[in-house]
Amino acid sequence: MPDIAHRPRVVIVGCGFGGLEATRALARADVDITLIDRTNHHLFQPLLYQVATAGLAAPAISAPIRHILRRQIAAGRLTVLLAEVQDIDAARRQVRLDDGTRVPYDHLIVAAGATHGYFGHDEWARHAPGLKTLADAFELRNRVLKAFEHAERHPGQREEWLTFAVIGGGPTGVEMAGTMAEIAHHTLHDEFRHIDSRQARVVLIEGADRVLGALPPDLSRRAQAQLERLGVEVRTGCRVTHVDAQGVTAQVQGQEAPWRLHARTVVWAAGVAASPLGRALHATTGVALDRAGRVVVEPDLGIAGHPEIQVIGDLAAAKSHPRDGEPTPVPGVSPAAKQMGRHAAANLQRRLRGEPAQPFRYVDYGSLATIGRKAAVAQVELPLLGELRLSGYPAWVFWLFVHIYFLIGFRNRLMVLVDWAWAYWTFQRHARVVVEAPPAASPSQEDGS
Amino acid sequence: MPDIAHRPRVVIVGCGFGGLEATRALARADVDITLIDRTNHHLFQPLLYQVATAGLAAPAISAPIRHILRRQIAAGRLTVLLAEVQDIDAARRQVRLDDGTRVPYDHLIVAAGATHGYFGHDEWARHAPGLKTLADAFELRNRVLKAFEHAERHPGQREEWLTFAVIGGGPTGVEMAGTMAEIAHHTLHDEFRHIDSRQARVVLIEGADRVLGALPPDLSRRAQAQLERLGVEVRTGCRVTHVDAQGVTAQVQGQEAPWRLHARTVVWAAGVAASPLGRALHATTGVALDRAGRVVVEPDLGIAGHPEIQVIGDLAAAKSHPRDGEPTPVPGVSPAAKQMGRHAAANLQRRLRGEPAQPFRYVDYGSLATIGRKAAVAQVELPLLGELRLSGYPAWVFWLFVHIYFLIGFRNRLMVLVDWAWAYWTFQRHARVVVEAPPAASPSQEDGS
Repeated sequence: MPDIAHRPRVVIVGCGFGGLEATRALARADVDITLIDRTNHHLFQPLLYQVATAGLAAPAISAPIRHILRRQIAAGRLTVLLAEVQDIDAARRQVRLDDGTRVPYDHLIVAAGATHGYFGHDEWARHAPGLKTLADAFELRNRVLKAFEHAERHPGQREEWLTFAVIGGGPTGVEMAGTMAEIAHHTLHDEFRHIDSRQARVVLIEGADRVLGALPPDLSRRAQAQLERLGVEVRTGCRVTHVDAQGVTAQVQGQEAPWRLHARTVVWAAGVAASPLGRALHATTGVALDRAGRVVVEPDLGIAGHPEIQVIGDLAAAKSHPRDGEPTPVPGVSPAAKQMGRHAAANLQRRLRGEPAQPFRYVDYGSLATIGRKAAVAQVELPLLGELRLSGYPAWVFWLFVHIYFLIGFRNRLMVLVDWAWAYWTFQRHARVVVEAPPAASPSQEDGS
Repeated sequence: MPDIAHRPRVVIVGCGFGGLEATRALARADVDITLIDRTNHHLFQPLLYQVATAGLAAPAISAPIRHILRRQIAAGRLTVLLAEVQDIDAARRQVRLDDGTRVPYDHLIVAAGATHGYFGHDEWARHAPGLKTLADAFELRNRVLKAFEHAERHPGQREEWLTFAVIGGGPTGVEMAGTMAEIAHHTLHDEFRHIDSRQARVVLIEGADRVLGALPPDLSRRAQAQLERLGVEVRTGCRVTHVDAQGVTAQVQGQEAPWRLHARTVVWAAGVAASPLGRALHATTGVALDRAGRVVVEPDLGIAGHPEIQVIGDLAAAKSHPRDGEPTPVPGVSPAAKQMGRHAAANLQRRLRGEPAQPFRYVDYGSLATIGRKAAVAQVELPLLGELRLSGYPAWVFWLFVHIYFLIGFRNRLMVLVDWAWAYWTFQRHARVVVEAPPAASPSQEDGS
């Protein structure tokens, strides 16, 4: 066995889909891995909107990183650190943590992901929170549930508290809008004395001329029809120009005058901005960033001039290199992040063996978006049969089983299935808990971090 | 049917065990109820320590107040308000809410409960958080889980991060200490590379000479033996004189020199302080308060000179009036709060009928305290057979079924049972999620509250 000091040191930043997959793929490699994440859990982001809409408890979609990877830790090949990476020094091959500690590496995989972006209007953030972390989901859950409480208490402000705007008609926006309509029309119905929750308006605002722009146009149309059946008002061709405490202003295609929507609760599901570590990589290696701040990587997912650094997942502006045909951009979806994680791990092992790295090729198994109870659209690429398009109930059942299958941990799969069966039959959403922000962590704890 | 304006207006403050029970007991009464609570959920506090120790998700022990009481709301007899009562005006018969609104009443039931008290040392609060709300539980869960992460990252501070102090040997302190020992010795074992979580010390500090002082001495002894078997160090006769960021100082019975424990994580399970509404009631009615700030009530749970105001639950310094024998103090436990809630509702209806109110009599069914996996003590009062004392595994099974039985909602009972079965067989605690405090609620929402 080689001496532990001589094993190549691999640092992986971020334990989302990409970072977790890379870590697992290196389980049998003779390397010493340090996995660094800001949180202690891997989050199953595709179901985060269910936490934001009180359908699932947070632990059902999160798994402690240490627990998932306990075998690799016990084998003495993996150190997990709960820490935030502040900076990267490519010349010295070190990452710098929030407490100043420097962690040296021989190989670095950066999988720090993305957050929501406000197209340069960061002042909108406090009026229209986005949905990327569990803390975001709790904030949205509090806002949505409290809006109905405000409407019950304040007759003069009833209409504005019962209007909910969702900005962005991608998968997250469609899910949030559909589920909020379900809450208003079914879950809360009959639980208030002075308001009728069914009078709530849920308005989905999309700048392009159709929702779910990544899917074929006919699936967009079917998704919009299903949203409208659930009671969502869909406004396409409607570009948001301003967000404040009272609502949203937008420019409607083909209209002069701006359109104003009075809404006390606004959800941001529009823009994506890459992790600030993109800028850190640019500063230390000179690598190019795209407009969203993503790192433009080489065909093998490495950084030009720094083959020891790979960037994967939502932080990477990567291209897929099919065996025949032109390279195409890799979409920012979880299957792509996982495939990049496996690919980066394989290339790293090739480098260790002195073999050349291979270009990344994304395999597209299709797209899925859920809208609400019994409502979804799906486009599935089947190996021999070609493309299959589903919508409505069959698409929803398909979506449900795909998501349960990919959840981490048998217990979580079981619990989510029970929760959904329960919600399906009773229309109840069990996680309707408003918890006010706990007091900020005390200095006694922060001293040591 | 009488005109709605003429129905007696009943205001109930607080939806803990007492307030919820009073509201339910008035379901068929011809009164118009307004139930006011700071949160939107009824919390099953006896299992709060399980949320703080990552065994249960918050929604498993909380039920939305509106959902529990939806039938009374739909019947047009109940208004539920998410609001905080700031003050009570007994002369005008009004309660004043946080936004200045005044809610008039003909009858008032105050069930605002208690929080943890620091015996005048409020500066200890940030170093040693207590456990009364879900926000408290999240704060403790974050601190306990992060302490192990700090120990992994900072070799020089390993010992202080791996020492956990629990102050107070009542039921909450015993539960927290036993469960934290279980986490260190079983749950986290094998998940760290640089530390052995089994080396963690959990120290339970109690001022009196035995833990669980409300139980008979032999059960205290058995509880202490079970705690020690789980790996908890029990220090009785040890009065805490100082708490800071680095640990706890105490005066040990029969010793001159103070004792110092270096511990980065301290849990407060010692003092209880009544809700500030006790002082508000004193100010407006002149009623006496006891040393803990609880309202000294009449035998019928009313306030002297104000029979239209009743105080129940942990906020009341009440006495039980047995048919024969001397009055005895009512303990601050959930069965007592429920019985007071039912009694207050019955007395209110007696007043409406012009009948005299009856004195309160507490029926003691026994006491229960759990310590950890398969460890508990119980003293049960059986109707004909007399007192039964259990400890160890039988007491734990009994405790488990009693707690599941009293949980609100079939779904919660089912989920908690599944969670416990899962934790029992795997030693896993599924809710190990550290979520940093979300950003404070934005002004856009606060404007309207």
